[in-house]
Amino acid sequence: MSKLVAPHGGKGLVCCKLHGSELVAEQEKAAGLKKIQISARAKGDLIMMGIGGFSPLDGFMTKADWKGVCEDFTMANGTFWPVPITLDIAKADADAIEIGDEIALENDGVVYATMKVSEKAEMSEADKKWECEKVFKGEGEESADESFWKIAMEDHPGVQMVMAQKEVNIAGPVKVLSEGEYPDQYKGVYLTPAETRAMFEERGWSDVAALQLRNPMHRSHEFLAKIAIEVCDGVLIHSLIGNLKPGDIPADVRVEAIDCLVENYFVKDNVIQGGYPLDMRYAGPREGLLHATFRQNYGISKMIIGRDHAGVGDFYGLFEAQEIFDRIPTPADPAKALLCAPLKIDWTFYCHKCDGMASLRTCPHGKDDRVILSGTKLRKALSEGAEVVDHFGREEVLVILRKYYAGLTEKVEVKMQGAASGDVMK
Amino acid sequence: MSKLVAPHGGKGLVCCKLHGSELVAEQEKAAGLKKIQISARAKGDLIMMGIGGFSPLDGFMTKADWKGVCEDFTMANGTFWPVPITLDIAKADADAIEIGDEIALENDGVVYATMKVSEKAEMSEADKKWECEKVFKGEGEESADESFWKIAMEDHPGVQMVMAQKEVNIAGPVKVLSEGEYPDQYKGVYLTPAETRAMFEERGWSDVAALQLRNPMHRSHEFLAKIAIEVCDGVLIHSLIGNLKPGDIPADVRVEAIDCLVENYFVKDNVIQGGYPLDMRYAGPREGLLHATFRQNYGISKMIIGRDHAGVGDFYGLFEAQEIFDRIPTPADPAKALLCAPLKIDWTFYCHKCDGMASLRTCPHGKDDRVILSGTKLRKALSEGAEVVDHFGREEVLVILRKYYAGLTEKVEVKMQGAASGDVMK
Repeated sequence: MSKLVAPHGGKGLVCCKLHGSELVAEQEKAAGLKKIQISARAKGDLIMMGIGGFSPLDGFMTKADWKGVCEDFTMANGTFWPVPITLDIAKADADAIEIGDEIALENDGVVYATMKVSEKAEMSEADKKWECEKVFKGEGEESADESFWKIAMEDHPGVQMVMAQKEVNIAGPVKVLSEGEYPDQYKGVYLTPAETRAMFEERGWSDVAALQLRNPMHRSHEFLAKIAIEVCDGVLIHSLIGNLKPGDIPADVRVEAIDCLVENYFVKDNVIQGGYPLDMRYAGPREGLLHATFRQNYGISKMIIGRDHAGVGDFYGLFEAQEIFDRIPTPADPAKALLCAPLKIDWTFYCHKCDGMASLRTCPHGKDDRVILSGTKLRKALSEGAEVVDHFGREEVLVILRKYYAGLTEKVEVKMQGAASGDVMK
Repeated sequence: MSKLVAPHGGKGLVCCKLHGSELVAEQEKAAGLKKIQISARAKGDLIMMGIGGFSPLDGFMTKADWKGVCEDFTMANGTFWPVPITLDIAKADADAIEIGDEIALENDGVVYATMKVSEKAEMSEADKKWECEKVFKGEGEESADESFWKIAMEDHPGVQMVMAQKEVNIAGPVKVLSEGEYPDQYKGVYLTPAETRAMFEERGWSDVAALQLRNPMHRSHEFLAKIAIEVCDGVLIHSLIGNLKPGDIPADVRVEAIDCLVENYFVKDNVIQGGYPLDMRYAGPREGLLHATFRQNYGISKMIIGRDHAGVGDFYGLFEAQEIFDRIPTPADPAKALLCAPLKIDWTFYCHKCDGMASLRTCPHGKDDRVILSGTKLRKALSEGAEVVDHFGREEVLVILRKYYAGLTEKVEVKMQGAASGDVMK
């Protein structure tokens, strides 16, 4: 029997992806079904349902699930879940669907799933606002009652995404037909929960930590992973390879940087790199919980939660994503509870007096002894090809990031030259 | 209710030390009892029984306990215990004692306890040899069958100590009368289990790690403590302040070095320094288990076990003290089981390429990149006042150790001068 943590929900890995002749038959059927256009976020959710990453979900949530999840992290059947996984469609589309109908869910020309509709629930503006307040409002400055809505509608991509949802949420079980571009585009990095579990078992691991990444991996992340390696059997460096905000570093560059870091600074036996196909939801502390929930399906028992995990602006307290793990309900049935525990680590940095990496829990020295660099300053240095302060990053990784930024600059230059000569209009 | 781990054995802290009028009355009674001279090791054992450090023991072990402990880590009542805690006396003394007699246990002129003798058990040479093979024989080179006894009798202080024990082990409950020199000589460092538990609770700690020390604290130890600080609520840096081998650094110097390290390199809120009054038993892996067992009484839930913990020469495998935790029996009644878990950490060192501390689990680089210094070379450098290789120790600590070694040299010089002038004989 596997010594890894059981998948969430007590039903094993619930994988809605069809294979072989079943897949072919369903694809043929889908061609004749009413097509509904879905968002990139919903596409990621479907792929996760396909590969068991969202076990025990086998479809999008009902309104009762949505309400319980927003209110108390609990689905209608008592299972823990931190963030609504819902599918919004336009009123006109919903009116054309009867309960019991099968429909095809399409994004960017690809049918990702068929769905047997079990519920249509109108979502009023008030419903969406309530969802946002429950899910996205935190304890940071920008979450203060008087300013939250004004700032959130301008600056909170999670709130913006929910408020832009269409009028009706539809629920029902899905059959997933495609994993999209991920298996080809991120070959060897895109891993399903069954694959990571098999890799962990092959290595004899039972207590495995995950490091969530959506930014380039610098020494502070390396330090988090290495603390976990000391106290767990191994670490999965697990990058978001779905969609991010414009301006963020694309997944292929981040993956290359991690490869290079693992190659040069890790003992390979103790670390695996993987990617998961979700978009960022920008849900701060609740997203931290989601990271732990789906990681449990990948076989992860310890989710590394650092400073400002999944943070957005100043909407959340710096350690709110750690503290929320102490406030979630614990269902009496352990199969319905979150079993992946947080590995909480304080703010980390290089300290000259410590003569190495440290955290606020271990370093008693002052601000001037510490190497701390804001994302803005780092981007500026990298894009200008300037030196980055010593000890902040690994030179091999900085080379990759400089190359990426240089490429961006070239593209802009090419574009500007083109515009000057009129080429761009051809 | 305390959130700290419960004391070992399910009976709370079993403290055999008397106080107030009870103490005075027992001291008066003891003056009239037959006095038995005990070893320094037995003195430490008695003080631990006095302060609850050896809970649930309330006296020295019977032959049945001894047999179960040697054979299968289990006392006659089913409680886990890793190392015999027995009291040996001369046959002539034993013959003068009847079962049921009360006797006084004395070391170096101080009566440490009274004891009501419940059993006298002759220990043959074969018994002692069997104990040594069970307790001290390991998986290291020097434990090989053909060479073990020859090398052990020359070089294994634990084996030498047991083989030098007198002919009869006596068992029975004790009333402890004195904590010896510890409360005065190590004021603020010598802490009882009740005191450490109160300190942990005052700080709101529940998951507390202990770092065992019997040598000066260098960066590798600092690193172990700091890993624990990242993943636990806090760390007890816990030094042996009883007796060591000749040539080891005395406890007061080690305590001063730790004070200095905590002052300069730790966040004080997350660390406490303490000392415990035992002598080293030099029992390698079994001693590692003993460290965890009595630490549980101090409120410790995680015992840091590094490379060659409590090692002696080459008698043990470098990670045997970690592996033994996976082999011990787990009594069905959790109160009888060892609840303090090992925090296993690999060989640690400073690595130039890693640009900080690392371990064999995290550093992929070569021998030449690592700062590794044998105890012998370190002692040579310190006693000659020479520079110690960069990154090995903290300069503040090295200053203390150099001062100690310089003092030793002065003493030798004074002695030699004295001898030359004939002063020494006066």
